[in-house]
Amino acid sequence: MKQVNIGLLGLGNIGTGTYKTLEMNREHIRRKTGLDFNIARILEKDVDRDRGISVSKDIFTQNPDDIWNDPNIDIVVELLGGVEPATTFMLDALGHGKHVVTANKAAVAANYEALTEAAAKNNVMFRFEASVGGGIPILNALTTALLANEYEEIMGILNGTTNYILTKMTEEDLPYADALKEAQAKGFAEADPTADVEGEDVANKLSILMSLIFGKRVLPADIPTTGITQITKADIESAAADDCVIKLIAAAFKRGDEVTYFIQPTLLNKDHPLASVGNEFNAIFVRGNAVDDLMFYGKGAGPLPTGSAVMGDVIEIGRAIAKGAAFD
Amino acid sequence: MKQVNIGLLGLGNIGTGTYKTLEMNREHIRRKTGLDFNIARILEKDVDRDRGISVSKDIFTQNPDDIWNDPNIDIVVELLGGVEPATTFMLDALGHGKHVVTANKAAVAANYEALTEAAAKNNVMFRFEASVGGGIPILNALTTALLANEYEEIMGILNGTTNYILTKMTEEDLPYADALKEAQAKGFAEADPTADVEGEDVANKLSILMSLIFGKRVLPADIPTTGITQITKADIESAAADDCVIKLIAAAFKRGDEVTYFIQPTLLNKDHPLASVGNEFNAIFVRGNAVDDLMFYGKGAGPLPTGSAVMGDVIEIGRAIAKGAAFD
Repeated sequence: MKQVNIGLLGLGNIGTGTYKTLEMNREHIRRKTGLDFNIARILEKDVDRDRGISVSKDIFTQNPDDIWNDPNIDIVVELLGGVEPATTFMLDALGHGKHVVTANKAAVAANYEALTEAAAKNNVMFRFEASVGGGIPILNALTTALLANEYEEIMGILNGTTNYILTKMTEEDLPYADALKEAQAKGFAEADPTADVEGEDVANKLSILMSLIFGKRVLPADIPTTGITQITKADIESAAADDCVIKLIAAAFKRGDEVTYFIQPTLLNKDHPLASVGNEFNAIFVRGNAVDDLMFYGKGAGPLPTGSAVMGDVIEIGRAIAKGAAFD
Repeated sequence: MKQVNIGLLGLGNIGTGTYKTLEMNREHIRRKTGLDFNIARILEKDVDRDRGISVSKDIFTQNPDDIWNDPNIDIVVELLGGVEPATTFMLDALGHGKHVVTANKAAVAANYEALTEAAAKNNVMFRFEASVGGGIPILNALTTALLANEYEEIMGILNGTTNYILTKMTEEDLPYADALKEAQAKGFAEADPTADVEGEDVANKLSILMSLIFGKRVLPADIPTTGITQITKADIESAAADDCVIKLIAAAFKRGDEVTYFIQPTLLNKDHPLASVGNEFNAIFVRGNAVDDLMFYGKGAGPLPTGSAVMGDVIEIGRAIAKGAAFD
């Protein structure tokens, strides 16, 4: 059985989730693909932490050159997060002829052209399904099975933290501060929740979606963005009186060559497919000129759902390698 | 630009929708794929019908051998519907080394092994995304981006006619007979609605899903199936009193090696993602052991949504041809 070797950058939450996804479903993946995926090297300082997985200490390194220069490594999986050094590492990996998979929304949004161009130049694949919508296979669908459509509209609930807070405010009549505390207690919000509640996390994801489906590059900082910190109980009640709910919506609309886009708390009629997406779930609503309305719903974060998306990309690349096809 | 030539079997509603999808988005598809998809021959008796499209009469034929024996034709798209002659035609096409795309749920459900084995034997691709869930790209997602998951559960609202009827019974307090009449008036139900309301249409789709994700072959007639004709206003009201709705659910659950499956009107709590899927929409809920809960929602029928799915398959095959890859 052909082995496909992975160099993993980072063994934090998402790295561990990816490792667990592969460990848990190794036989299943072998049976379905005829390929044996193997995590051969891991770039990670913290060798000793108990992650609930068994990893040989021999495969850890603190020198990325050990991965770039290993001719056995086919795919580099970047799960460090943050723009740097992740971007530099990915460009180095692509430059050394490695296929690259990442879950890193900040790095992809900031450096979309540089990364996609480096992949094309080196005739390798670059995939980033997990960077938008966690486990939801939205990027794959938009770029393969739905490709016969011109897209007119995309709207997403792309952040589980803010959706959880708004759901609690709506269903349990909590003020923002209490709902935030509950989200923090449940692990859905960080101690410093700024990136989530101010919409910065979502801006990365909308930037990636627009690059991909409209060919329109907008840096996250250039997307008009309003978070949820000013939403009051009175706003929620007033929405309910009009048969609406308030959701933090990332939206982009294309009319002719013009794309308009924003991230803001938005009134949605209760009949809208996105209105019933509750708690920490994410969803992406898209309208194509042939397929009409579609919605994809699922877990937008978490080690295993994100691991599912990362491994989906890894498997796609492994299959392409096995076929000896040209890469794209 | 490389041309990919299609032989189309049938220019009825779905054939016309596929033709229109390609016509409407031809430039977009060229730009995205670098390929020029061309409907080169059409097997169809009714040459003169006004379909709102412009087709040269020269490309019509009534002899399928004109398609099998044309070395320029790469892909045969079967949109005749019904088990025969569609199955025989698809086997003939595969035997002549043509890739095959179909929207034909009855033929795929009845002859899944014969068709997939003929494709493998002839080293060509066989795709049938449009046979389940219309425009919703569920089969592609389950077999590519989500492949790192073992699936535990799949539940679907897979028939727009029955979902429309149940929605009207619930929202407008109509008895079954009146809701059926309204569905017929709106074009969502046929004059003889048996195949829809008795669940036969859904059985084909569940059979295909189980073959694909569980490797479990169950013929449609062997799926325990109850349609919606016995549902009363009292049932709907009693469900509502328990915070539930009634949906016609096709379900398959895997525990160990055991798969249980059924199609029946089912009480869903209003919080279930499938509960808010209304009118003629379809949705598929799936749980994977890494990705957790996912739902895909969209138009399960209609010429353009189905055309979107057919063209998605055609584009996948065209790209594989252009890459010179091995086929699967």
